[in-house]
Amino acid sequence: MKNELTDRLGLEFPIIQAPMAGGVTTSQLVAAVSNKGALGMIGAGYMSASGLRDHIRDIKKQTSRLFGVNLFVPSIFSSNREEIKNVQELLKPFRTQLNLKEREINIPSCEEEAQAFAQLIDVVLEEKIGVCSFTFGLPSGEVIQRLKGEGVVLMGTAATVREAIEAEKSGMDMVVVQGCEAGGHRGAFLPEAKESMVGLMSLIPQAVDSVEIPVIAAGGIMDGRALIAARCLGAKGVMMGTAFLTCAESGASSVHKNAVLGAREDEVVITRAFSGKWARGIHNRFIEEMKNSEWNVPAFPVQNALTKDIRSASSSQGNPDFMSLWAGQSPMLAKEQTAAELIDSVIEEAQRIWK
Amino acid sequence: MKNELTDRLGLEFPIIQAPMAGGVTTSQLVAAVSNKGALGMIGAGYMSASGLRDHIRDIKKQTSRLFGVNLFVPSIFSSNREEIKNVQELLKPFRTQLNLKEREINIPSCEEEAQAFAQLIDVVLEEKIGVCSFTFGLPSGEVIQRLKGEGVVLMGTAATVREAIEAEKSGMDMVVVQGCEAGGHRGAFLPEAKESMVGLMSLIPQAVDSVEIPVIAAGGIMDGRALIAARCLGAKGVMMGTAFLTCAESGASSVHKNAVLGAREDEVVITRAFSGKWARGIHNRFIEEMKNSEWNVPAFPVQNALTKDIRSASSSQGNPDFMSLWAGQSPMLAKEQTAAELIDSVIEEAQRIWK
Repeated sequence: MKNELTDRLGLEFPIIQAPMAGGVTTSQLVAAVSNKGALGMIGAGYMSASGLRDHIRDIKKQTSRLFGVNLFVPSIFSSNREEIKNVQELLKPFRTQLNLKEREINIPSCEEEAQAFAQLIDVVLEEKIGVCSFTFGLPSGEVIQRLKGEGVVLMGTAATVREAIEAEKSGMDMVVVQGCEAGGHRGAFLPEAKESMVGLMSLIPQAVDSVEIPVIAAGGIMDGRALIAARCLGAKGVMMGTAFLTCAESGASSVHKNAVLGAREDEVVITRAFSGKWARGIHNRFIEEMKNSEWNVPAFPVQNALTKDIRSASSSQGNPDFMSLWAGQSPMLAKEQTAAELIDSVIEEAQRIWK
Repeated sequence: MKNELTDRLGLEFPIIQAPMAGGVTTSQLVAAVSNKGALGMIGAGYMSASGLRDHIRDIKKQTSRLFGVNLFVPSIFSSNREEIKNVQELLKPFRTQLNLKEREINIPSCEEEAQAFAQLIDVVLEEKIGVCSFTFGLPSGEVIQRLKGEGVVLMGTAATVREAIEAEKSGMDMVVVQGCEAGGHRGAFLPEAKESMVGLMSLIPQAVDSVEIPVIAAGGIMDGRALIAARCLGAKGVMMGTAFLTCAESGASSVHKNAVLGAREDEVVITRAFSGKWARGIHNRFIEEMKNSEWNVPAFPVQNALTKDIRSASSSQGNPDFMSLWAGQSPMLAKEQTAAELIDSVIEEAQRIWK
């Protein structure tokens, strides 16, 4: 199981726990994964600098091993009053349904997002985090140099071969290629057509042939079969999200976990209705009722801010209808177990196949 | 490389050449594949009974080995004058561009399609074809019993786990699971959402866990890496389309072959503009200009009949702009070679990986 990826990161197993944002990557989950010899990662995309610092310190109490942080790279976006007013109108029935009052929503600005990102980078450096991965783009050359100067291993996220090449050019040490199978947000940063979302069977070998840096495969990978398959296709390791989401240590709500455990592969669809970016989750009423409007919602992170109260209320009311039930395309393989049990079973199965 | 699939079909290698319709599967291609120890297949979807009979006899002169026939299972469809008039209006600029006169088009009827299918089944039986596969649906119990009674091995096509289960229930001996990576028409027959198209990394293991019959993987598979990956995921064999399409013996036009050889993975998109069914091909002017209308075109096979003259003229004028350039998501791995060279290199690479 050892190779240049495990060597570089000092891992026993070429398994990385996907940095799912929004509270899934509890300190217990990240520490359990790293303690087991895989790489735990914090999904810090929506965290504040102080929140991330506290979270890191909490994890450090539970493990002395390497763990990583994932950040969302901010990009330029704009929104206008008219657009926001229209969406608020569309969202009204959901708020009524959930007994939610429409409150003043703090619409994010590019400047705030850029500042928040800079502060998160500072925390990564101050806390001497060993691995930092990026989604939705590549950071500036300056940020890359600063992090590499301190020995931080950098991981880009790519949804196409073109993006993997860009990630390598930018100075990333490794690249996660995200197949169309992946749950949650598409990590794509170059314009991506929904029509060309690439499956891992195609994406891994074409990416491996096009870059020199280690390729890590993400999307639909749940067990030892998929770990070995990804390795045969040329990936040095795998990133697993949905498989860790249903683990005991994960911070996903029980409504979310149960929805994944009960879902079939063809119920997991792509939508931009929740956040303004394409993301994969279990089909529900919100997705269905927003279907004809999903092209007209404001860009990320504006739409994400606008739907936040709806998603939260739906979750705290135990109602799966209006939550973002992110999941990859292999929910039928999800299990209730601990992170250590998951890693054990993946490795055992992989070794059985590989003999 | 041997297993229950190769044993059942008497193959040396668990490789099936995809039955690409529309003239790609020449007698030379089918015979070369079967002579090499893999399974050659005729894409008979658009053939007449006499055309299929001639084609089979031509292949029999070139090989004594097993080869198969694929048929499109007709389903109920309807179209009306208004809808057809509207599409003809949309298609006008393409005909002008190609100096094509609008001619009376023979609109297919359900009865004609059903009759043509029944005649093709008769040919399969009369010519003692050993393997028959089906796309776009499952034949009636009567047809299945008749074919099985004569010892024909039956293969269903499934784009989801649910469809694989249906295929098994119907009496299919094997099932081809078609990942979202696959080129050409989606073989789906239950209502399929574009948003839930499943990648092979997810589809293979979930299908394998849900049916007892052998699963064959199709979509983006071009080399030994993918063959071994599919096997690790639980598939007994692979079906390869695009890889054979660019082979010397393939009947694809040189415009089509060159387009595939020059394409990147993210240029291969899903469209229903050509035929009224979702299909994957290389992005071109026709797809782009029909983008906003693709939901409004008549169902298959009506739209297919309406665009036929445009696709043919574009092809014979050597112009890739208005042809259906079907291809899977791994065009960067396509090569100019003979079918035997392709099979040799797949097997050599697979054996190198598997040691």
